[in-house]
Amino acid sequence: MKPEWIAVDRRPAVPHAWAMRGATVLDERPVTGTLDAAIGDWLAAGARDIVQCGDPAEMTPVPAAPGKLAPRPGGNLNGGRLWTLPGLTQSAPVDLMFGAETTIAGFLSLNPNWDGVICLPGAQTHWAQISADEVVSFQSFLSLEILAALGATGVPALDAEFAEAVADTMSRPERLAQRLNAARAGARLGDLADGAVADRMLGALLGAELAAARPYWLGQQIALIGPAEMTAPYAAALQTQAAMVTVAPDARMTLAGLTAAWRRLPGQVSSS
Amino acid sequence: MKPEWIAVDRRPAVPHAWAMRGATVLDERPVTGTLDAAIGDWLAAGARDIVQCGDPAEMTPVPAAPGKLAPRPGGNLNGGRLWTLPGLTQSAPVDLMFGAETTIAGFLSLNPNWDGVICLPGAQTHWAQISADEVVSFQSFLSLEILAALGATGVPALDAEFAEAVADTMSRPERLAQRLNAARAGARLGDLADGAVADRMLGALLGAELAAARPYWLGQQIALIGPAEMTAPYAAALQTQAAMVTVAPDARMTLAGLTAAWRRLPGQVSSS
Repeated sequence: MKPEWIAVDRRPAVPHAWAMRGATVLDERPVTGTLDAAIGDWLAAGARDIVQCGDPAEMTPVPAAPGKLAPRPGGNLNGGRLWTLPGLTQSAPVDLMFGAETTIAGFLSLNPNWDGVICLPGAQTHWAQISADEVVSFQSFLSLEILAALGATGVPALDAEFAEAVADTMSRPERLAQRLNAARAGARLGDLADGAVADRMLGALLGAELAAARPYWLGQQIALIGPAEMTAPYAAALQTQAAMVTVAPDARMTLAGLTAAWRRLPGQVSSS
Repeated sequence: MKPEWIAVDRRPAVPHAWAMRGATVLDERPVTGTLDAAIGDWLAAGARDIVQCGDPAEMTPVPAAPGKLAPRPGGNLNGGRLWTLPGLTQSAPVDLMFGAETTIAGFLSLNPNWDGVICLPGAQTHWAQISADEVVSFQSFLSLEILAALGATGVPALDAEFAEAVADTMSRPERLAQRLNAARAGARLGDLADGAVADRMLGALLGAELAAARPYWLGQQIALIGPAEMTAPYAAALQTQAAMVTVAPDARMTLAGLTAAWRRLPGQVSSS
């Protein structure tokens, strides 16, 4: 089958491309190397448009409706027209989002009239407050990047150790750096296995994050969108707070957001 | 002059050796490569004992008097007798100190009957509560390691931006990971110079640390011992809290601690 257009998520963690006909996926692959090399065969097969997110040249200030952002023309790439979705920016507190706005747009396209808070875990985790299809405000945290930077290598069990660490830094967030140190000291003393170190460090980081984001999630509908290994600890941490969460797969949501953006291209008449 | 003994600080950040006669420094150098290669000429010139800290095989639980720790014999190194000072360990909260206990011992040997809290800034910063020449308890923080891990490269000016970040995370420590993110977002938006990013990140980290360590330093005499670039931000942060601090050079204190330990070697009769 001949691809009609190409969807691309340029975010560094998960660069990925899909060969599309309307909303139907014909093929998909990770993007390694340059974009034109990665999708050259699809362009040669006749794909006319490339719609990408995650590498914006322009930013739109919040409040903004992610489902109404206009893809910006970015010239020609081996015969295809390149379109790039803008990211979101916020002035107070200063924050940036690029790529996640498209994931949010996809989730909202599949869940019309959904109000609440969307949490998108990643090296940089975004919490976005959604009302009337708009991102009203958002805030971002470096918790998982800090965890990786400190060299926690074990796989967390998300067990009682994790829950205790969450509870402790939620009630005493100033102890975060001290608890991170204590977990590593326990490992060096041979008292803690790698997995338990990861549980304590991750629990401490997410406890502090939940304390800071409390005004966002308390009493709200919560959607968690991300890779399973990243949504699982957030779901477990929120569970200790008796919060209800919906978990959604990020690639499917992002593709839905890119597809909705493709339908908004000027003069677009879809074949399907 | 013929060295009598050799003092060695084995801590990874600052490995350093001194050729000594009594308490007099004959020569000194950084330790690069193996210890026996670094001090081979001093051993060949007749140095009998090597007293080292920072790489302990044994740990002593607190409370403990750093000035009374017995150097442990560690065999023979090219004709010299190797002696290693034990580190300190704590069970609740779990914590470790190796090397800093000797710096503390040196400070206390030069400041008899000093009670208060000693803060030793480093990749891992220790706060030690001192009473009657003993480390009663201590706690450690990874703030500077987190700063380095997040790639903050600018030199902080320790100005109003820094003071504001300190004040903000002292009062709302749960916002630490959010503030770290906002500083970096500001840099990416081109709104903040590298130095301002460093001020905001370092200020946020130290504000959270001061909040957690408050029971240690509030109303106490405070001594800051470390390299100047690390003691300066702690002094500036404590200054915003109207706390008085004494700043002491770490190499001199550590050498004083090693010298005091050398005097405690079994059968030691110093030539000076």
